[in-house]
Amino acid sequence: MKIDVLTLFPPMFEGVFSASILGKARDKGLVELNTIDFREFSNNKHNTVDDYPYGGGGGMVLKAEPIFSAVESLVDLQLEGESQPRIILMCPQGEPYTQRKAEELAKEQHLIFICGHYEGYDERIREHLVTDEISIGDYVLTGGELPAMAVIDSVVRLLPGVLGNESSASEDSFSTGLLEYPHYTRPVQFRDWQVPDILVSGHHANIAIWRRQQSLLRTWSKRPELLKDASLTPKEQLWLADLEQKKQAADNML
Amino acid sequence: MKIDVLTLFPPMFEGVFSASILGKARDKGLVELNTIDFREFSNNKHNTVDDYPYGGGGGMVLKAEPIFSAVESLVDLQLEGESQPRIILMCPQGEPYTQRKAEELAKEQHLIFICGHYEGYDERIREHLVTDEISIGDYVLTGGELPAMAVIDSVVRLLPGVLGNESSASEDSFSTGLLEYPHYTRPVQFRDWQVPDILVSGHHANIAIWRRQQSLLRTWSKRPELLKDASLTPKEQLWLADLEQKKQAADNML
Repeated sequence: MKIDVLTLFPPMFEGVFSASILGKARDKGLVELNTIDFREFSNNKHNTVDDYPYGGGGGMVLKAEPIFSAVESLVDLQLEGESQPRIILMCPQGEPYTQRKAEELAKEQHLIFICGHYEGYDERIREHLVTDEISIGDYVLTGGELPAMAVIDSVVRLLPGVLGNESSASEDSFSTGLLEYPHYTRPVQFRDWQVPDILVSGHHANIAIWRRQQSLLRTWSKRPELLKDASLTPKEQLWLADLEQKKQAADNML
Repeated sequence: MKIDVLTLFPPMFEGVFSASILGKARDKGLVELNTIDFREFSNNKHNTVDDYPYGGGGGMVLKAEPIFSAVESLVDLQLEGESQPRIILMCPQGEPYTQRKAEELAKEQHLIFICGHYEGYDERIREHLVTDEISIGDYVLTGGELPAMAVIDSVVRLLPGVLGNESSASEDSFSTGLLEYPHYTRPVQFRDWQVPDILVSGHHANIAIWRRQQSLLRTWSKRPELLKDASLTPKEQLWLADLEQKKQAADNML
């Protein structure tokens, strides 16, 4: 996979693209990661890429021209067909990012990310250039760089050969639709706190049952809205319904 | 504000902490940003910070001890009172991050972020050390570093004096509860595409009305669930109800 990132701050990406899984995937040749400073595509003598908004107001707006020119330096947009890249605008108005979207993007050959700062993007970028608009969450960030890094990390780790242990990718939270069960490692006793007996019992069937219950319990208590899309057995559905009933009874007694 | 980040990958943060708003806030002395490699707090000769999970299964689990020791090197947890930092675990099971949470954290004096990799954290870290667990969204990332950067960026830009133009922070998406209206900047004509006439009319009252309508329309069409928390005038509510009715009528005709 080839990934190009249009940004005014290429050095922000250096550490992230070199470390951990992204660095390893790059070293193994599984992904090509480039940053393009779109200021180089400014067509004016002051190298500006932003300007005041029509209609007034605070903040600056990224101009259409340098963004179009930078993308067109990477790919011939006149060509038809499947070879066209996904051109992804990182912006708060975008579609909320999900693991499903990561899986969709992981099937592509070429992704181009556009990272803006300032007040916003000239609307013509949104209307006539990009294929996807993505938001990583409902909070305000300074620019699109950190969101692009998050999307890139989540996509690249899904590419074949990137993660050593294939089971790690599939057992993560959101891949099963439930939050993860609690993990413990050595020592058995740390300060005053013990590992639950079940986990050192050696009884693997019981451990599997305990973990599944803990996953269900944690999801039910912290993120109940995730349960409606999870695959649950009829027995699990009854158990959760019973929990819910007990909770409501307890709430009513207060 | 002082921010400490516990990570096995300090170089990931260098570019991000030096660029743009974070770099400027740091240069102005408005925030102190540190990374702590908690591998230095490993108490074994191989410098390992993770181990196999009790009960079996794939992946590795971060040990409690190096994390506790690293945090205790920064702060005396036995002291009572308001001087205690927020100790924030970045994890998929955490509370979904919002702009409201950013505003809450921006009032603190000291934030400590714990960024894990691998399968998970020893549960005793979660139970006996951290004050907050945060998830930036329902997608799987390789580690807590990128989420911590996103939270730090969103918090630091709210600190007094960090953003030059104070209006930029308050007019962003999610601060008003609505998505932003479209922005345009020069040229009036770019390729075949014109700036809307209203924005070059010079009629500021009409421009304000158009922008508000565009914000409402965009929110209604892309993220309708945000409307229930937005402050709308009775007239705006009627206008949106009318839109909704027309849309349903159109849907019914298909």
